[in-house]
Amino acid sequence: MTSAAVLGAGSWGTAYAKVLADAGTTVRMWGRSGATVDEINVGSNEGYLPGIRLPAAISATQDVDEAVAGADVVVLAVPSQTLRSNLGAWGDVLTRARAVVSLMKGVELGTTKRMSEVIHEVGGVDPARVVVVSGPNLAREIALEQPAASVVACTDLDTAELVARACAAPYFRPYTNPDVVGTELGGAVKNVIALAVGMAEGLGLGDNTKASIITRGLAETTRLGVRLGGDPATFAGLAGVGDLIATCMSPLSRNHMFGANLGKGMTVEEVVAVTSQTAEGVKSCSSIYQLARDHDVDVPITEQVNFVVTEGRTPQEVVASLLGRARKVETA
Amino acid sequence: MTSAAVLGAGSWGTAYAKVLADAGTTVRMWGRSGATVDEINVGSNEGYLPGIRLPAAISATQDVDEAVAGADVVVLAVPSQTLRSNLGAWGDVLTRARAVVSLMKGVELGTTKRMSEVIHEVGGVDPARVVVVSGPNLAREIALEQPAASVVACTDLDTAELVARACAAPYFRPYTNPDVVGTELGGAVKNVIALAVGMAEGLGLGDNTKASIITRGLAETTRLGVRLGGDPATFAGLAGVGDLIATCMSPLSRNHMFGANLGKGMTVEEVVAVTSQTAEGVKSCSSIYQLARDHDVDVPITEQVNFVVTEGRTPQEVVASLLGRARKVETA
Repeated sequence: MTSAAVLGAGSWGTAYAKVLADAGTTVRMWGRSGATVDEINVGSNEGYLPGIRLPAAISATQDVDEAVAGADVVVLAVPSQTLRSNLGAWGDVLTRARAVVSLMKGVELGTTKRMSEVIHEVGGVDPARVVVVSGPNLAREIALEQPAASVVACTDLDTAELVARACAAPYFRPYTNPDVVGTELGGAVKNVIALAVGMAEGLGLGDNTKASIITRGLAETTRLGVRLGGDPATFAGLAGVGDLIATCMSPLSRNHMFGANLGKGMTVEEVVAVTSQTAEGVKSCSSIYQLARDHDVDVPITEQVNFVVTEGRTPQEVVASLLGRARKVETA
Repeated sequence: MTSAAVLGAGSWGTAYAKVLADAGTTVRMWGRSGATVDEINVGSNEGYLPGIRLPAAISATQDVDEAVAGADVVVLAVPSQTLRSNLGAWGDVLTRARAVVSLMKGVELGTTKRMSEVIHEVGGVDPARVVVVSGPNLAREIALEQPAASVVACTDLDTAELVARACAAPYFRPYTNPDVVGTELGGAVKNVIALAVGMAEGLGLGDNTKASIITRGLAETTRLGVRLGGDPATFAGLAGVGDLIATCMSPLSRNHMFGANLGKGMTVEEVVAVTSQTAEGVKSCSSIYQLARDHDVDVPITEQVNFVVTEGRTPQEVVASLLGRARKVETA
């Protein structure tokens, strides 16, 4: 039987731990908070997945060495901007696992590195053992066992298959894919596009406008991802358009809701104060914009979202700018 | 000044007539119903666009020859399954126009022909003068002047540009594209996919599931369209994924709502009885399925929707079948 450690006890880390357990994998979670760890050990994580019963095959600890001891698969589910410091503090916890899975959706500020690159660089993990799981996977729906599919990406397909088997629950269908770069980029940029779609919604605009922004957002995500070595087919798949649509449609998406609050006229600081958390796209938009500039890729939506977050541009100006570009041939 | 005739006075025909008028084009509409024609002549079409004020540059008539007299552009907005008989009854109304625009989203039953093919065959119009307009264009939102973009496709880009100029209203952005086949297929198949997404919603499934069906639906639309000669880029654009998302997200979409009613347990006949109309996807799914079979293209979602519509298969069986296929490599 496969055993897995899940490091991080937020919504998606906990929901994915449940998926692993429901697929027959033994799971030990690591959490920072003693109260959350205690709660998981008696079968729930009310702060992140209220009302969800966790399987008995999940246990939790505050000791990271205990969590990873004997684990075939180590899953990383910490905030993307803290990954480097977490791995630094934890020492060589990743070296013995057959596979290290990233659930994180972000690009590191300052370095513009993807999470798999940070895992390789700081954790000393061979890229053939680094796996990215991403797709249309709203945590709460998966915790409710609603059917979902996801991409399990690794340059080494045997490693991908190991992880896919470990998480193939009755309601969760993993598809393997060798394209780590594309899978990771799709997951990161979609949060920024969801902010833009949320802004349009907050301004009272309808589904035509939102669908147009999603379409143009998919185009800029694909442009950037392909320039970085990703496969165009990945962006047309579950980790690309699939995740983008789920995030942009769902009222459960934090990025979507954050954008909607901005569209209604709140400032970034006001939204953070009200929701007591910052959406991933708010944290990542400047590093993704920097990454695109470094590679001379045109990303107008990411650029505009970054202006709102870092320079206080208004959502009205952003949406007007996105809709007002010169009329032209579609594929130009 | 360009002048246009719009033949058909339903929601989209009327909304597009308003777009043309707001772009500075003179518009004469043809309608079957005397009451609708009278209403349009005094500035509204309450049966299809309640509460919307139509511009004074739109007039209407029940005489099709009067409608098309002197028109540079003739726009066809009749039900797709009646196009052939309409054109037969109307005689040579299309022969003098510089461009003939299809707003119709369907594939003809029996012949499996696209609307542009029927226009060429029955109307005697050179393909270089046949234009298809399609995109994320929910009629009511456009009538409310919410910002939207659309594809204006013609094999002859000068003709496309003529139509694009005629409909470039402040809130409506046309993008020209030479790919008529892809633009037309995207518009037709999306109605069938929206039925499947509606069924999932009616069954109580969430955004992960719906996003997965949309993603797989885009894949099968692209497979079919490319086999028929369409450009893959079209399916990644406004007339492909853009229109698909708008239709599948919106509570305003008839196909989406029809599917949701099926998902809640109603039969096709019961939904028709309640809504007093049949959604386009219900009429087109069997001809699209036939078209795919004729070209050996695998279209599992269209196949399953067709089974519901023509053989009484239940939405539960359909969704289970779509989610239960063997786990595999994503791009296989």
